[in-house]
Parts: sequence; structure tokens; C-alpha cells
Amino acid sequence: MKIVVTGAAGFIASNLMPRLLGEGHEVTGIDNFFLGRREYLPQHSNFSFNELDLLDLDQLIALFERVRPERVWHLAANSDISYGTKYTDFDLKGGTLVTYNVLEAMRRTGVKEILFSSSGAVYGEPTVMPTPEDYGPLFPISLYAASKLACEGLVTAFAHNYDIRAWIFRFGNIVGPNPTHGVIHDFALRLHKDPTYLKILGDGTQAKPYVHIEDCLDGMMFGHAHAKAGFNCYNLAVDDQTSVNEIAAWTLEEMGIDRDKIRIEYTGGPRGWKGDVAQVKLDTRRMTALGWKPARSSREATRRSIREIVAQVKDGRVQPPSHGF
Amino acid sequence: MKIVVTGAAGFIASNLMPRLLGEGHEVTGIDNFFLGRREYLPQHSNFSFNELDLLDLDQLIALFERVRPERVWHLAANSDISYGTKYTDFDLKGGTLVTYNVLEAMRRTGVKEILFSSSGAVYGEPTVMPTPEDYGPLFPISLYAASKLACEGLVTAFAHNYDIRAWIFRFGNIVGPNPTHGVIHDFALRLHKDPTYLKILGDGTQAKPYVHIEDCLDGMMFGHAHAKAGFNCYNLAVDDQTSVNEIAAWTLEEMGIDRDKIRIEYTGGPRGWKGDVAQVKLDTRRMTALGWKPARSSREATRRSIREIVAQVKDGRVQPPSHGF
Repeated sequence: MKIVVTGAAGFIASNLMPRLLGEGHEVTGIDNFFLGRREYLPQHSNFSFNELDLLDLDQLIALFERVRPERVWHLAANSDISYGTKYTDFDLKGGTLVTYNVLEAMRRTGVKEILFSSSGAVYGEPTVMPTPEDYGPLFPISLYAASKLACEGLVTAFAHNYDIRAWIFRFGNIVGPNPTHGVIHDFALRLHKDPTYLKILGDGTQAKPYVHIEDCLDGMMFGHAHAKAGFNCYNLAVDDQTSVNEIAAWTLEEMGIDRDKIRIEYTGGPRGWKGDVAQVKLDTRRMTALGWKPARSSREATRRSIREIVAQVKDGRVQPPSHGF
Repeated sequence: MKIVVTGAAGFIASNLMPRLLGEGHEVTGIDNFFLGRREYLPQHSNFSFNELDLLDLDQLIALFERVRPERVWHLAANSDISYGTKYTDFDLKGGTLVTYNVLEAMRRTGVKEILFSSSGAVYGEPTVMPTPEDYGPLFPISLYAASKLACEGLVTAFAHNYDIRAWIFRFGNIVGPNPTHGVIHDFALRLHKDPTYLKILGDGTQAKPYVHIEDCLDGMMFGHAHAKAGFNCYNLAVDDQTSVNEIAAWTLEEMGIDRDKIRIEYTGGPRGWKGDVAQVKLDTRRMTALGWKPARSSREATRRSIREIVAQVKDGRVQPPSHGF
């Protein structure tokens, strides 16, 4: 099958595409290399790549007309939440407008299936935890989450009006190799540069469900194969949580840095940054009822990802984000 | 107090501004006359008007810097839901991007209060009716509703991150004089042109809570005065519903058209158009608990508005929308 993957050079897609290619699909990747990295792209005869800004609707439609995909994995997004609080139009453009363009290009060229990576951040600071998919009200506290909510609304409206089948997955924190951002990426790069000092945002007690990328991809593929409604929405998470302090301790351990020989500084307060949801628990029962469970706990996912990312940092295969550090 | 009103020449704002001016406020109105009508603007020494497209952020910031408002009533929007299904970027631009610009202009110039007109359409087709404010999931079925949901998310995220106080009101169908669209407006104009024929979208059984504009404004003003959280969200509706068939019958009656001498044609099906939520009931208990109730039922609001609008149509004070009919 012909499949388009947006955000192809990003974290999720670069782990996904070898699987799609392994299953025999013809994959067309799109990225603008804002967060994505060229070296994360696969080398494969069934893979073609287009350097394209998804904000350019005409080019996107032309590409869809040429490729005639049957399915889109729409994974392009700003995934660096704190960045979006500094530049208030960043998530609006890189999330909301881009998602509108993907849906409009699908509508104009008759593409009928979309998988979309949303986030548990749409729940804002919920009063029910673990938070189920039908939780309301949805009052996001970051511009990143506001954009994910806006994208979800566009997906459901396009699905209803233009007979597009849609699968929305609300992710916990996804971790694993080829990161472009995130706390493990941040700690490993900083400690690689200076093993005597670590700055921790907030007070380190922030705790979230970390999902290994392999489980994330398993879950999306299982959900796509088994959820049969015209429009489907699932939390994709694990039941336990990992704190930032645990991640710091395990990263030090993996890098062989003695806790007593390093200065750790906290920026303080319960949040990593304004707009950070400090405590996240997502209800996973809908996915379980569908027949799928992640293979790894948050603890296992985090420890394994630390190992994978530290190895990539030591090899120079993981670099600081190009937009600053 | 200095107040900016967006969508100033539109239905809601043109009814609001005489009240604000009557209370002694200095009001700056903004409109681009896409749906709004110049003749709806007030003549008052404390009112100044700016013809401005809210998509122009730089001009909007310059205006806010000059005026230095303390509060914004952000009422500009596409209010013609079916129009937004034909032009898929219409609500995105006229709703979502415009609302981002208003919030960003507020952030950049230190404006600290916003009242925003959202819609019960954000609930999509809810399984709980009457639908309360904390209902989830929010899966809108029109691009209009998707945009209102996107705007709400932007409002909550800006409120959280930039210390802006916000009041979101999720409207039922608001009716009254100075309409720019809507079923009464549509029926009255069509019957004025041709009293022998009426086309009704759907099967006419669509039923919604109709709120008179005077109650709508009372409710927003009461909510703003009494809801004290940093971020506030209320349904603004009535408990009963009125059907499209009732509105048709009452409009014929008001215009003195004999039911037996007119050909009525239905487009058929339970919805007015794809994306229309045919049955709407909004839970009004949160507003009641705050201490406010609408003075008129849906039936009373509708009958009174038919009288008001038919009179305006006969006087030529209400015209078909400039973007087509």
C-alpha cells in the first residue's frame, strides 16, 4: 500500500518507517528538518523522501496527486512543548495549520485514512486520574496542547464531513532511540558535555507515563487494525509513572557518573515550565478492552530508552536541537 | 472603562454596544464587514470604529497600543456554519487564526480580560443531553465547531500562561434583531421575496434551544460580573427547544401568509446540512447556580425574534448576506 508519513525525519516516524517498509509498503516521507534529522531517514528502495514545508498546501496537494497515497500517518508536529510557550504562533503554525493542510490535501485528492498522534496534554489538568478518553472539560494549559486539541477537532470534523476514517492516539511521553527533544535527550546531551553539572527543571517530582516507542508503534498498528469505527480515539500509555528525579538518577547511573561528584540544580516549583502538566496518568482501559497492552512498564521503557539514547549520544548520532539548546 | 469589541457590526455586538455605551464605557469596535453590516454600528460620541481585518496581527497590535483597552469582547466569527463546510479554511481563518491574533495582541499589549462567544457545537453529537460544561469527549462534526473548540483551547492556554482572565460562553442559538444569518433571517428574507414558496433544510424536526439576544447579553454580563475564577466556562442557553418546523409556522403567521397557499419543500433527512447537530439541549444548571436565569423560554425568544426580524426585513433594514444567499 502507498503510505505518506509526515514528520518523517522525526522521532516517531523514523522508528515507524522501517516497520512499514518491512511490511512491503511504499512509503513517501515528508519533513522540513526543523526538528527532524536527515540521518534518521531510512535507506530503502521503497522509500522516497520529499523535503517540504507542510504549510505549503499547493505543494502538498501536488505531492498527494502524484503519489496517490491510500493512508497518511500524520506525525509532524512541534514536540517541544516549552518551545511553543516562547513563540506563541509556533504550535498554531506547525501543528494546527499543518494538520488542516494535511486533511485538506487528503480531501482534495481522495485519501481516506489518517492516523494522528495527539497527546494526553489535551486533558489539561484533569480532576479525574487516570484520565479516560471521554474526560471533559478539555482546558489545555499549553499552546502545544491547545494545538493538539485544535487538530483533533479538525480531524473529527473532516472525518464526519468528508468520509475520512481517522484514528487519534493520545500519547503519554514516548521515549526511545532517535529522539529530537525530551527529558532523556536533554539530560544525556548535557551530561555528555559536562558530567559535573545537571540542571533539572521544576523540583523533579513531575511524574508521567513513559511509553517505549516500540510499544507506541505496536499500539498504533494494533489500534488501526482493530478499531473499526469511522472515527477512533485512544489513550496510548502505560499504567505506572516515572519521575524526572528517577530519570536523572538512572541517566547518571547509565553514564557512570558518581552522584556525589556532580552538582544538581533545580529550577524549582512543581512544574518543569509554565504550561507543563506536572502529574499525568492516562486511563489505558480502552486499549486493553480492544485487546492490546504495552509490553514494557514506564520504568522499563525509561531505563531501556536511557540506554539507547546514551549510546546514541556517545556515538554522536544524537545532537542538540538545531533551534537551540 | 476602555473596551474593544470585535465583530462590532455583527449580530451579537451590535446589540451589545448600546448597552456598553449606556453604562459609560468607551467602546472601540472592529469589523471587516464580511458578515457584519455598517448600518448596525452605533452612533455615539464614546464609540469609535476601525475597519480592520483581524487576520492582520500588526495592525491589531498597533490599534491595541493606541487604544490601551482593559477588556475585549471577542465576538467576531463566522456564524454561518453551513458556509464553513463549503470553504474548508473559512472557520480556520475567520475563527481560529483571528482568535489567536486577538489573544496575541492582548498578550503583547497587556490586556487582561477577554469574553469569548463559543458554542454548544463544541460538544459534537453528545451522548448526554442536556449537555453539561464538563462533558467529554469533544468531537465536533463541523469545521465551525472545530474552530470554536480550537479557540477555546487557545483562550485557556493564553489564560494559563499569560495571566489573562477569560470568560467563555457556549451559546445555544441566539436570536433577535440585526441578524446576519440563521434560520429566522433566512425564512423571513425568502418569504419576503416570494411568499408562495419556502425551502426547509432537513426534515424540519431539528430542535435547539433559542436564546433571545437580550438574555444572551444579560447572561454574559452577569457571568462576567459573578464568575471569579481565572478561567470561566458556561453554557448560555434555555431549557426548552424549538423546532425548525415551529419557526417556519410562526414566521408564516407573523407575515400573514396562509399555510394553504404556500408550497413548502424539504431537502429531507434529520440534519439541515452535513455537520449540523440536529438535536441540541444544553445543561443550564451552572449558570443557574451562579444566580442567573434567562427571562424568556426558547419559544418566547423565537416568537419575539420573528416579530423583530420580520419588521426589519419589511423596512429593508435586514438584507441577504453579502457572500451569497
